[in-house]
Amino acid sequence: MAKLKKRDELKTDFIRYAEELTDTAGLQAVQARSIAEKAGCSVGTIYNSFENIDGLLLAMNSRTLTALGESLKATLAANEGATLENRMWILASGYLDFAVTNTKRWKAVFEHNMSDRHAVPAWYRQAQAPLFGILASVLPTRMSDHERQTTARMLFSAAHGVVALALDEKLSDQFDRTATEEQLRLLVQLIARGISD
Amino acid sequence: MAKLKKRDELKTDFIRYAEELTDTAGLQAVQARSIAEKAGCSVGTIYNSFENIDGLLLAMNSRTLTALGESLKATLAANEGATLENRMWILASGYLDFAVTNTKRWKAVFEHNMSDRHAVPAWYRQAQAPLFGILASVLPTRMSDHERQTTARMLFSAAHGVVALALDEKLSDQFDRTATEEQLRLLVQLIARGISD
Repeated sequence: MAKLKKRDELKTDFIRYAEELTDTAGLQAVQARSIAEKAGCSVGTIYNSFENIDGLLLAMNSRTLTALGESLKATLAANEGATLENRMWILASGYLDFAVTNTKRWKAVFEHNMSDRHAVPAWYRQAQAPLFGILASVLPTRMSDHERQTTARMLFSAAHGVVALALDEKLSDQFDRTATEEQLRLLVQLIARGISD
Repeated sequence: MAKLKKRDELKTDFIRYAEELTDTAGLQAVQARSIAEKAGCSVGTIYNSFENIDGLLLAMNSRTLTALGESLKATLAANEGATLENRMWILASGYLDFAVTNTKRWKAVFEHNMSDRHAVPAWYRQAQAPLFGILASVLPTRMSDHERQTTARMLFSAAHGVVALALDEKLSDQFDRTATEEQLRLLVQLIARGISD
């Protein structure tokens, strides 16, 4: 009885269906028609909630980013007072964990491209920002704001590179978690040492 | 007169056509039919040279990796005696350069997935190895072989992460070369410092 639901509830339903489709068959499987089928409503009802399919996919991806951020924050909070290296390791290994556990949903964040080369809306960029804030929070306070922001983005991208090439099996035939952790550990060790120098 | 050409010449022709199609319209555009059209031959002739389309795409991608390796080696050779940080910077900024100049061909290396979940053939993995060898060559000789190999792979993946997320405009609305170079410079600086420690 989709029609009886409130607008916000409906939106959340559609996002959940998109997540289910992603978890089962990847981003490519998320289409307005298959969601309408799951929801028992018309495709038009979906477009009352979201301007277009990009809007729905970005809403799903921003939920993934929020979930990632929440899990990283929780592990950090449980390890207050740890050294810079250990805090960076918590973030890097937490990122790997999240990607391994939620592979298809995590991939969707990076696979999604806007249709017709439309710009990514500002609200989505704002949804990405807290993640860099979490990374920046472990960096020494003697760094300038700009330095912390640049370092946070660099750390995210570098750890992402290690995790993504490993999970996509681009450099070896099978995802090797131990080898991936070794690379992440080395990245974090060397960078933490470089920062503390 | 494709028929009169020797097998090797034909292979090279097909790879060149695949490269042209990639440069114009990306990996998705490389199809046996469009190559046969360009070559003025039948699709069957292509499959006399390559087992399947994956074989042709991997041949193209390994040529891209070789070109990347050659360009990195040449810049390194022109800067012998530079410090560890400077040699790592030559490699990282050379990688960015290559990706910016050959964006579609560079993307094809990471976008290509084998059909039907076939394994990547061993010869392609062997074609990747020299790249890590180049990275390992700048690392201190006091490191063990295993340490150098792990560090080389980590460095490649980390720099790739920075370059790929920037060029794919995943974290900002437009590719910002200056900001990307700043992140790469920081990555290299901190890691070189960490290694020299």
